[in-house]
Amino acid sequence: MPMADSNSIEQIRLLVTGGTIDKSYCPVEGSLSFSRTHVLSMLKQARVVLPEEQVQTLLLKDSLDLTDEDREVICQAAATAAETKLIVTHGTDTMVLTATRLAARALTKTIVLVGAMVPYTFSNSDGLFNLGLAFGAVQLLPTGVYIAMNGRIFPWDSVRKNCTQGVFETVAAPGAS
Amino acid sequence: MPMADSNSIEQIRLLVTGGTIDKSYCPVEGSLSFSRTHVLSMLKQARVVLPEEQVQTLLLKDSLDLTDEDREVICQAAATAAETKLIVTHGTDTMVLTATRLAARALTKTIVLVGAMVPYTFSNSDGLFNLGLAFGAVQLLPTGVYIAMNGRIFPWDSVRKNCTQGVFETVAAPGAS
Amino acid sequence: MPMADSNSIEQIRLLVTGGTIDKSYCPVEGSLSFSRTHVLSMLKQARVVLPEEQVQTLLLKDSLDLTDEDREVICQAAATAAETKLIVTHGTDTMVLTATRLAARALTKTIVLVGAMVPYTFSNSDGLFNLGLAFGAVQLLPTGVYIAMNGRIFPWDSVRKNCTQGVFETVAAPGAS
Amino acid sequence: MPMADSNSIEQIRLLVTGGTIDKSYCPVEGSLSFSRTHVLSMLKQARVVLPEEQVQTLLLKDSLDLTDEDREVICQAAATAAETKLIVTHGTDTMVLTATRLAARALTKTIVLVGAMVPYTFSNSDGLFNLGLAFGAVQLLPTGVYIAMNGRIFPWDSVRKNCTQGVFETVAAPGAS
Repeated sequence: MPMADSNSIEQIRLLVTGGTIDKSYCPVEGSLSFSRTHVLSMLKQARVVLPEEQVQTLLLKDSLDLTDEDREVICQAAATAAETKLIVTHGTDTMVLTATRLAARALTKTIVLVGAMVPYTFSNSDGLFNLGLAFGAVQLLPTGVYIAMNGRIFPWDSVRKNCTQGVFETVAAPGAS
Repeated sequence: MPMADSNSIEQIRLLVTGGTIDKSYCPVEGSLSFSRTHVLSMLKQARVVLPEEQVQTLLLKDSLDLTDEDREVICQAAATAAETKLIVTHGTDTMVLTATRLAARALTKTIVLVGAMVPYTFSNSDGLFNLGLAFGAVQLLPTGVYIAMNGRIFPWDSVRKNCTQGVFETVAAPGAS
Repeated sequence: MPMADSNSIEQIRLLVTGGTIDKSYCPVEGSLSFSRTHVLSMLKQARVVLPEEQVQTLLLKDSLDLTDEDREVICQAAATAAETKLIVTHGTDTMVLTATRLAARALTKTIVLVGAMVPYTFSNSDGLFNLGLAFGAVQLLPTGVYIAMNGRIFPWDSVRKNCTQGVFETVAAPGAS
Repeated sequence: MPMADSNSIEQIRLLVTGGTIDKSYCPVEGSLSFSRTHVLSMLKQARVVLPEEQVQTLLLKDSLDLTDEDREVICQAAATAAETKLIVTHGTDTMVLTATRLAARALTKTIVLVGAMVPYTFSNSDGLFNLGLAFGAVQLLPTGVYIAMNGRIFPWDSVRKNCTQGVFETVAAPGAS
């Protein structure tokens, strides 16, 4: 049984990779792009005290633009992190693929991937809720790789993004019968 | 070990009691007060699909104004709920007291109390993050009563609100030694 | 001298044509697009009482996509409006061109074009301020065509958008010497 | 006839006195209070370029708490300002009284009082729109004292706050017949 341990927050590292959650509007270009991560602002708004150095920006990319090399960077950072509870902010389109790569490493860590369907910079963003969901999940889940979206927590091998409806949903895990 | 079960969301009931999270600005009075709960709007923003009838407004009160009768109403609703995973939105000032009363019932349910330091109606509210945190926690924790605030999850008997700093913090549980 | 006439608001018609001010985020497409105008929501937030039928959606287009036919639609609506004070919400990229076309009609009306550099749906939008600026300007200016942006009010023939800096600025009017 | 002069923005001074527009939520106290003015943030969001020294904080008070001495401070600042176009941010409850005092000075300046029914710190504030309205009005109105609220511009001697409905409305000026 998981214990609620209010100090487990100290064991959390956030790995930032970009994705919709971190997109900003560029008024000159008239389009969405990345300037810097909003995760530190989000934590401040959430009144979460986490040492700034536990938030690590690896990449700031749309997840459709992530290369194999980028995924290697993410896996490497997860492997070498001193913390055992990792939250990876990530674009939703290829979140499951990165989760699969992370799972293949079989790290003895709890890794929760999270993102948003609407950027944090929009007044109706789901980003803040999702980050809260990931904070709850990462502190309580056993070792493994998970995706936290739409108020749900999915094991990496039984989830897909339904691109028509814009929601994550359960699929039968390959090994399930 | 807790299993991540993406369908456990269906086992969630939200009991609304008021508190800062639900306060609105009344332009005529020039003060903060309650009109209706914002929890349904928050879930919509968070892109969480939960049947509307699983959100139940018991009270809309500042938690300093809660009476013994009010706490009895909350405990009664928790006891009779068909769902086994309960989120109670609540003012922060007496959240620990209500948690204590709920714990005394020893229900075979997971109950997470949550609120906000800044109302959801403010652009810099922590409410949405906290609600996400509670969603993550309630789906993964074993039977018991907990408080989810400041990115942390506290067992009911080892937490207090630090009113000077406006944060929840750990205290040694009475039974700990 | 202009008189401040608090009832002149009744003489205002808003012609909506789209532009950045009205763009929304489409979570499924992952891009900015138009669903419906936000102008009615903006007026409600601004606590402005204006009959809903005085807000007229002509188009919902990026101003780079406006055709000659679209500009004819705008000019026609301006000419036939019963009101003498017109606010035209418009994308910033070709706002000056549409203003030129409107000026060529030499209508005995006061026409103020306005838009935003950041969509209203973003928490840091300039749209609400700009709409307020246009409301002030349209009630006080004599007959003519104007652009209201960046807190300034420009006659149509002495303004350009500085696309590098994303601000509107004065240029000498052709007839000035 | 007023000329639209896009450079008249340089002639604007903002005198900050507090009021609802500038109230913030204090999480520790659980109530609305003043910390610092939001006017500079509002101008930045509005993409208005105005030298910071043209924004002058005189007071940060609920307008019900303003004393005769406070109103003297406001009148004095208006009289001595180098600029001829003054925007005074002010609580709504006694805005008309301060306008009356300012009018008694018969300064050869254009003075527009403005405030908000909902603080800027709330996501549904009317403050940004109102400030835009005041910017439009102050640049175009002749010498005199005015109130800009609810999308309307009122001469100081023909306006009252309807406290039941929370809107400003026209009353017959004393001298009118």
